[in-house]
Amino acid sequence: MKNSFFSRFTPKEPKFFPLLKQLSEVLCDASIVLIESLQHDQPTERFDYYKKIKELEREGDRLTHLIFDQLSTTFITPFDREDIHDLASCLDDVIDGINSSAKRLAIYNPRLIPESGRELSRLINEEAVLICKAMDELDIFRKNPTKLREYCTRLHDIENQADDVYEFFITKLFEEEKDCIELIKLKEITLELERTTDAAEHVGKILKSLIVKYA
Amino acid sequence: MKNSFFSRFTPKEPKFFPLLKQLSEVLCDASIVLIESLQHDQPTERFDYYKKIKELEREGDRLTHLIFDQLSTTFITPFDREDIHDLASCLDDVIDGINSSAKRLAIYNPRLIPESGRELSRLINEEAVLICKAMDELDIFRKNPTKLREYCTRLHDIENQADDVYEFFITKLFEEEKDCIELIKLKEITLELERTTDAAEHVGKILKSLIVKYA
Amino acid sequence: MKNSFFSRFTPKEPKFFPLLKQLSEVLCDASIVLIESLQHDQPTERFDYYKKIKELEREGDRLTHLIFDQLSTTFITPFDREDIHDLASCLDDVIDGINSSAKRLAIYNPRLIPESGRELSRLINEEAVLICKAMDELDIFRKNPTKLREYCTRLHDIENQADDVYEFFITKLFEEEKDCIELIKLKEITLELERTTDAAEHVGKILKSLIVKYA
Repeated sequence: MKNSFFSRFTPKEPKFFPLLKQLSEVLCDASIVLIESLQHDQPTERFDYYKKIKELEREGDRLTHLIFDQLSTTFITPFDREDIHDLASCLDDVIDGINSSAKRLAIYNPRLIPESGRELSRLINEEAVLICKAMDELDIFRKNPTKLREYCTRLHDIENQADDVYEFFITKLFEEEKDCIELIKLKEITLELERTTDAAEHVGKILKSLIVKYA
Repeated sequence: MKNSFFSRFTPKEPKFFPLLKQLSEVLCDASIVLIESLQHDQPTERFDYYKKIKELEREGDRLTHLIFDQLSTTFITPFDREDIHDLASCLDDVIDGINSSAKRLAIYNPRLIPESGRELSRLINEEAVLICKAMDELDIFRKNPTKLREYCTRLHDIENQADDVYEFFITKLFEEEKDCIELIKLKEITLELERTTDAAEHVGKILKSLIVKYA
Repeated sequence: MKNSFFSRFTPKEPKFFPLLKQLSEVLCDASIVLIESLQHDQPTERFDYYKKIKELEREGDRLTHLIFDQLSTTFITPFDREDIHDLASCLDDVIDGINSSAKRLAIYNPRLIPESGRELSRLINEEAVLICKAMDELDIFRKNPTKLREYCTRLHDIENQADDVYEFFITKLFEEEKDCIELIKLKEITLELERTTDAAEHVGKILKSLIVKYA
C-alpha cells in the first residue's frame, strides 16, 4: 500500500523541477524536428519526420504522467499541486500540437508548404526555447522574478506575431487558392501550427500567475 | 514577499462578484458587436468589427487573469476557489468563441452570411444578457435561488434552439451548396457560432451546480 | 441550507461507483447504436440513430452532473474528489464524441461510409466495453489492481490501432478522393471518430493514475 497513512507524510522529494526541465527539452527537440519536417516535400520524408516527432510526443507523455503520478503520491511539493499539474499538462499540450501539425503534414501531404507555415514553425521553436529557459528559473524566481517575467512577455509577443502571420496567410489563401483540396490541406495545417503557438503562450500565462502567487 | 505567512491570512476582500459582473459586461458588449459584424459584407468592415471584438477579448482576458491572480493570493473567498475559477474561465471561453467567430468571418470572408448565422449571433447575445443578469444573483441566490435557476433553464433552452438552427442549416448547406470553398467558409463560421452557444450554456451548468452546492 | 456546517460533515454515502458504472453503461449503449448508425445510408435513418444517441448523451450528461452535485455536497468520498470528477467528466467526453460523430453523419450525410469508419466505431465499442468492466474494479483494485491494469493496457493498444486506421484512411482519402465536398464529409466524420477513441484512452490514463495513487 503506497498511500498508507505514514508513507504519505514521508517526504520523497521527487525532482519536479528537473522533470519539468526534461519535458521542456523534449518540447525543444520536437520543435526543431518540426522546422526540418516543413522543409521537405516527399511523402515518405514527411512520414519519417512525423514518426520522429511521435516518438518525442510519447516521451513527453511519459514524463507528464510521471510528474502527475509523483504529484499524487508526494506530500510536499515546491508549489501547490495544481500549479505543477497545470504546468506539466500545458507543456504536454504544446508537444501534442507539434505532433498534430507534423501528422497533418504527413497524412494530408500538400504540394508545397508556404513560407508562412515555415515561419510559424520557427515561432514555435522560439517559444520552446523560451519555455526551456523559463524552467531554469522555477527554483529561483521567488527571489528574483525579472528573467521569468521577461520570458512571459516575449512568449506573449511571439504569439501576437504568430496571430498576424496566420491571419494574413489565411486571408490570402481564401482569396487566391482555387484548388479546394489544396486549400483544405494548407488551412488545416496552418491552423494546427497557430494553435500550437497559442498553447505555448498558455504556458507563459501559467508562469505569469506563478509570479503573482509566489514572488 | 506577497505570500508570507501573515499576508495570506489577512483578508483582502477582493471584489470577486463585481469583477465577474464586469467580465459578463464585456461578454455582452462583444455579443452586440458580433451581431453587427454579421450585418456587413465588405472585407474591411468585417476586419474592423473583428478588431473591436479582439480588443474586448483582451479586456476579458485581463479581467479573467486578474480574478485568477486574486484567487491565488486571497485566503477568504465567497465560494470555493475552484468555483470562482471555473466561472471566470467559462465566461472567458464564451468571449473567446465570439472572437473566433468574428475572426473567421474576417479572414474567410464569405460572399454572404446566411440568416442562420445571424440567428445564432442573436441567440449568443440572448445568452450573454442572461449571464449578465445571473452575475447580479451571485451574492443573493443562497437565500433565494429562484431567479438564478430560471436563468439556467433559459440558457439551456436557448442552446437547444441554437442546436436546431445549426443542424438545419448545415444539412441544407451540404445538400445545396456546390461551391466547395464557400461551403467550407460557411460551415466553419457557423460551427464556431454554435460552439459559442455551447460555451454559454456551460456557464449555465456551472451556475446550476452552484445552486446545488450552496443554496 | 444544504451546506450548513453540520450537514457537510454528515456522511451521506452517495453511491459514486454505481453511478459511474451506470454512466459507463450509457457509454456502451451509445457505442452500439453508433456501430448500427454507420451501417445505414439513408438520411432519415441516420437522423433516427443520431436522435437515439442524443437521448443517451443527455442521460450521460444527467448522470455526470448528478455525480458532480453529489461530490460537492458530500464530505466523505471513496477517492479524492478530483479523481471522481475527472473520471465522470472523461466518460462523458467519450459519450459526447459518439454523439458528435453520429451528428456529423446525419447532417453531412456522405454517400457511403468507408470500412475504416465502421472499423473505428467497432474500436470505440471495444473501448466502451473495457471501460464498463473497469468500473467493476473501482472498489476492489486497491487490493488487486491486476485486472484494472490490464484494461488500461488494452485501451492504450486499441487507441494505437485506431490511430493507424485513421492515418491510413486519411492518407488514401487525400490521394484518391477528387470530390472535394465528399472529402470534407468523410474527413470530418472520421476525425471525430478518431478523437472519440482518444477520449476513451484518456479514461484509461486516469484509471492508471488511480492505480499509482491508491493501489
